[in-house]
Amino acid sequence: MSLIPALKTLLGDAHVLTGPDTARYARDWMGTYEGIPLAVARPANTAEVAATVKLAADHGIPVIPVSGNTGLTGATYTEGGLLLSTERLNRIREIRPASRIAIVEAGVILSTLHDAAETHGLYFPLWFGARGSAMIGGVLSTNAGGSNVLRYGSTRALCLGLEVVLPDGRILDLMSELHKDNSGYDLKNLFIGAEGTLGIITAAVMKLVPAPLAHATATLAVRSLPDALTLLNRLQAATGGLVEAFEYMPADYMRRLVAIRPDIGRPFATPHDTTILVELAATAPALATPAPDGTVPLADLLESTLADLMEDGLVLDATIARSTAQRSAMWARREAAAEIGAAVKPMIDSDIAVPLDKVATFLDRITPRLATIAPGADTVTVAHLGDGNLHFSVYPGDPSKDLYDRVITAIEDIVQDLGGSFSAEHGVGLSKLNSMSRRKDPVALDLMRTIKSAIDPAGLMNPGKVIPPKDARK
Amino acid sequence: MSLIPALKTLLGDAHVLTGPDTARYARDWMGTYEGIPLAVARPANTAEVAATVKLAADHGIPVIPVSGNTGLTGATYTEGGLLLSTERLNRIREIRPASRIAIVEAGVILSTLHDAAETHGLYFPLWFGARGSAMIGGVLSTNAGGSNVLRYGSTRALCLGLEVVLPDGRILDLMSELHKDNSGYDLKNLFIGAEGTLGIITAAVMKLVPAPLAHATATLAVRSLPDALTLLNRLQAATGGLVEAFEYMPADYMRRLVAIRPDIGRPFATPHDTTILVELAATAPALATPAPDGTVPLADLLESTLADLMEDGLVLDATIARSTAQRSAMWARREAAAEIGAAVKPMIDSDIAVPLDKVATFLDRITPRLATIAPGADTVTVAHLGDGNLHFSVYPGDPSKDLYDRVITAIEDIVQDLGGSFSAEHGVGLSKLNSMSRRKDPVALDLMRTIKSAIDPAGLMNPGKVIPPKDARK
Repeated sequence: MSLIPALKTLLGDAHVLTGPDTARYARDWMGTYEGIPLAVARPANTAEVAATVKLAADHGIPVIPVSGNTGLTGATYTEGGLLLSTERLNRIREIRPASRIAIVEAGVILSTLHDAAETHGLYFPLWFGARGSAMIGGVLSTNAGGSNVLRYGSTRALCLGLEVVLPDGRILDLMSELHKDNSGYDLKNLFIGAEGTLGIITAAVMKLVPAPLAHATATLAVRSLPDALTLLNRLQAATGGLVEAFEYMPADYMRRLVAIRPDIGRPFATPHDTTILVELAATAPALATPAPDGTVPLADLLESTLADLMEDGLVLDATIARSTAQRSAMWARREAAAEIGAAVKPMIDSDIAVPLDKVATFLDRITPRLATIAPGADTVTVAHLGDGNLHFSVYPGDPSKDLYDRVITAIEDIVQDLGGSFSAEHGVGLSKLNSMSRRKDPVALDLMRTIKSAIDPAGLMNPGKVIPPKDARK
Repeated sequence: MSLIPALKTLLGDAHVLTGPDTARYARDWMGTYEGIPLAVARPANTAEVAATVKLAADHGIPVIPVSGNTGLTGATYTEGGLLLSTERLNRIREIRPASRIAIVEAGVILSTLHDAAETHGLYFPLWFGARGSAMIGGVLSTNAGGSNVLRYGSTRALCLGLEVVLPDGRILDLMSELHKDNSGYDLKNLFIGAEGTLGIITAAVMKLVPAPLAHATATLAVRSLPDALTLLNRLQAATGGLVEAFEYMPADYMRRLVAIRPDIGRPFATPHDTTILVELAATAPALATPAPDGTVPLADLLESTLADLMEDGLVLDATIARSTAQRSAMWARREAAAEIGAAVKPMIDSDIAVPLDKVATFLDRITPRLATIAPGADTVTVAHLGDGNLHFSVYPGDPSKDLYDRVITAIEDIVQDLGGSFSAEHGVGLSKLNSMSRRKDPVALDLMRTIKSAIDPAGLMNPGKVIPPKDARK
């Protein structure tokens, strides 16, 4: 029997889609990648995923897992492969509040997990814009980041156990709830961030944390990026590590912001080069319980700390959110980043990371390089500064392939020289394959190929993603 | 040229030891394993490690890395292989306090790193008994745990970057300082915990944290282990997650303790079944700075929290350390575990982990099983309870191989049934190979073999460790 009828027998006709019915699975949310899959299979559980993968393997058809379609790198694009949607694996199998764990399937939407944790007074501390669509399977497969990584780590740090269907259809049961386990190789982390090229993640044991009882948010101005790092460390010291977000919005960002969203406006009457959004979060009642006069101790702590830092000359200007509305307004300034990016085309964007103390060096070096390559090009920077993760965008007048390549080369030359990464939180997919060829340590790349060939010898798991072909142009 | 003269040419005569000079490298600290290596090579740097591994590979001689010799599983035992000591790779290459990182070589002793971090007001938060001898290379290769894992994670969680010499002598440079990097597979975690079977770790980038400014320590009694988990969660909630150690010492432990160390004595006049040592640590000055009357806010917080918990009936009895001497005395009670273990032989010990909410179930089930298998056998339990990690020891009268096997089988049957691990923090080495055969998920074990064969096709990296032979007796 050929693959599609066999899949229909296995999954039921309603769960094997072909033709136009595949469109919504085959197109990513930005509309950048739109493929034509052979079909979309929608298995209902792990056993069905395993049987689907086995069938596809028997037919020599590539399998490309897809969950929320919110990726940014084309990792779920396929022409002729079988898209395996995990959307029906959407059960939260169990939440065990005393152990602070949630056992979830790959198709659970991130915000669904947020809501479920909240009913237990707990929090799943992974937070980013696409949380209403992104699913756990994709979150794990891309080791998603976001704005809380500073405090809680990336997805990898939040995962205790994993269930994976291997390329030959076997089920790998690593569903550990353990905090210590040294019984052999760390297989779990090999599949997290592998973007479906080694197997298909079907379920996971995720850590939960106590829900913050209070937040305190401020927008600050400092003199320079090195001062910003000093500020971060001073804030962490003063609060005992309560900083949950530390976001950088420089002058170029603010200029675009006020042009596009005049309703939001600048935080300070006097523009500053280095603006930081900082948020603290506390779970201790002593910091979170309002005083009789309504003031929250955490807000007082932030205020007195900032007063000290202003006295020391480290902080030039500061404004503290006094209400939920003011907090939202501060975040709106940061979350307008996507709008800013979309407002002016063409844009050359990047998702880079450098060591925490090298962010300033990157910006100091890229500016004169760009002045030569793309004179007059505008730039916009916005950063998860506490992680050294920058989204640095260039708006050249001329969108030619050649200019694009020269700008990316200039950015990545400096990033590489500083020990940074060309892909901080979005992954590789298709869009960063050239960067993998050019920038990744050749021994590391060779080792990745060795592992890929060993685990997926037929090369049928999301082929062509993450690892560039050996003879790729550099 | 045969291997030893070639090594002498490479490293210098003084750094290739043979015969009796190899003894101190070939024997583990407990004296359980004592092998006869072909020689001990002592390369001075990564390039020399690479050249040593290449030479050994060319001669078909196995290479077994050794650092502080403090392992407990025979992972550095060899008959006829080349012991590669990392002790001369002992430089702290760099500490960058603003970025909270230390770049260290594999031969740096753990306590040396502690001291170096301390000079910057920072802390490397991995803490266990052998810290004065254990070296970073071994710490990483075994993913060492200890008593702070609850707060800071195992070694894996503290490592940002790694340098590894591969089985063919190539150097894999993963010396990232980044907090976000999604540029391909997570190779780093594959080598951490692999016990030298995939390559030799030569250097690493480790995270540092702010040094605690104050500790508050107490010994508590609760009614049951489920109550202990409730207690842990209540303490975390009340303090905003400041619990740094949560150690369990039940009645069987206390009985042995008073017998062997009458100088230490019981914590309470009335013996309790479930005694907990808890320690909080604070980095926030608001909790750490003594009031004019000398009281430390963190200690006040612990005291008032415990008062509430006693009022609620959750805590039966409590004593708080009022001085450094009292704190040390409380820890002496816990740290006597090694002495207790050594005092009475023969002992059947274990290093197991179960989910946090299954510790009580394990003990409830093992007791009647042991009563059948080894009637009258004494047991001693001590646990890093906050991680679900138990060191459960059985003292049968009869030390026969058969009884040993039946006791281990009984323990591991229950552990496996509860989703636990037979090796929580010590690793596999030689001593847990049988458990790997019997207990590890067969798909996981097969995948480990696949990875091992792919990365080390000649099978020369620490052969015979971690992965049992395929035809092993079960």
